[in-house]
Amino acid sequence: MLVWLLRFRGGINIQSDDPEQIFNVHPFVMCWGFILLVGEAILAYTTIPMDHRTQKMVHMLVHLVALILGIFGVYAAFKFHDAAVAPDLVSLHSWLGILAIALFALQWLFGFFAFWLPGAHERARAILVLAVCAAETGLVQKSAAAASAGEGKLINATGVFILLYGVAVATAVALRKAFFL
Amino acid sequence: MLVWLLRFRGGINIQSDDPEQIFNVHPFVMCWGFILLVGEAILAYTTIPMDHRTQKMVHMLVHLVALILGIFGVYAAFKFHDAAVAPDLVSLHSWLGILAIALFALQWLFGFFAFWLPGAHERARAILVLAVCAAETGLVQKSAAAASAGEGKLINATGVFILLYGVAVATAVALRKAFFL
Repeated sequence: MLVWLLRFRGGINIQSDDPEQIFNVHPFVMCWGFILLVGEAILAYTTIPMDHRTQKMVHMLVHLVALILGIFGVYAAFKFHDAAVAPDLVSLHSWLGILAIALFALQWLFGFFAFWLPGAHERARAILVLAVCAAETGLVQKSAAAASAGEGKLINATGVFILLYGVAVATAVALRKAFFL
Repeated sequence: MLVWLLRFRGGINIQSDDPEQIFNVHPFVMCWGFILLVGEAILAYTTIPMDHRTQKMVHMLVHLVALILGIFGVYAAFKFHDAAVAPDLVSLHSWLGILAIALFALQWLFGFFAFWLPGAHERARAILVLAVCAAETGLVQKSAAAASAGEGKLINATGVFILLYGVAVATAVALRKAFFL
């Protein structure tokens, strides 16, 4: 992701005069901020070697940082559209992405209640899947602008790794449940 | 999906002289064949009101029909590339799609053994998620060719419904387990 944005796409800068540099904040923050931290937060709930109260607290705080970074990433996309005079919320990627972050925010806000309802962790995993789908559609959308076959393959490989991360988190939680619950 | 392919994209015909009509077989068969039937097969394993032996048999047969239709759908994409003189396996969509169908075929072939290994159903759901991701990336790729804002919104809505189907199947299985296992 970083090789792609820094070497092929001209760098990351939210205050740049170049709309592309503003845009590049978006995939960087969504991938290394939102998706990575949501996965880590899900894992932290069971894997941190401390008492369950601390696990829950870390789980909630990491999710909060993920949410703040996710909202910042969405802001970067809107700021890019503004700078490039492009319309907002046209693509399937934008629809899936807004859906993912909105459901995630709701799930976090109602987290205190949601923990007591059945299926909270199923909902959380469904939102992670949705976020991964949004990431894949975003990469495909941007790969139309790829300048070389090399850049195209780099984007594809990035997409495969993001997907494997999502599958690894979901599977780790599921298998842990199957074996230790 | 059908409104999109028939009204906006000029129809579905695997033996057409028009490469676009050959292509249209691909999304049609992957969506209404592969993804729909994989979901139905997953649900059939627990929801068919017969003895468990019959459930398993229906589960396996529906998965087999899904696999055959999936392979036919991939063939349609390759035939389209052939007719349009375009290279194969360039896009992230093609990588994710081939990965999905290959893992699905392996899972089916080793199904008899896989049922005895832990995590078989987790793997099956991971493959469904992968297939949905592949569908979303395919739609985004094709939406670059959308001729109007109306067609764009139709493609987006199709993508949202495919995603909701995947989430509904995964959630139904998970909740059933949580309540009745």
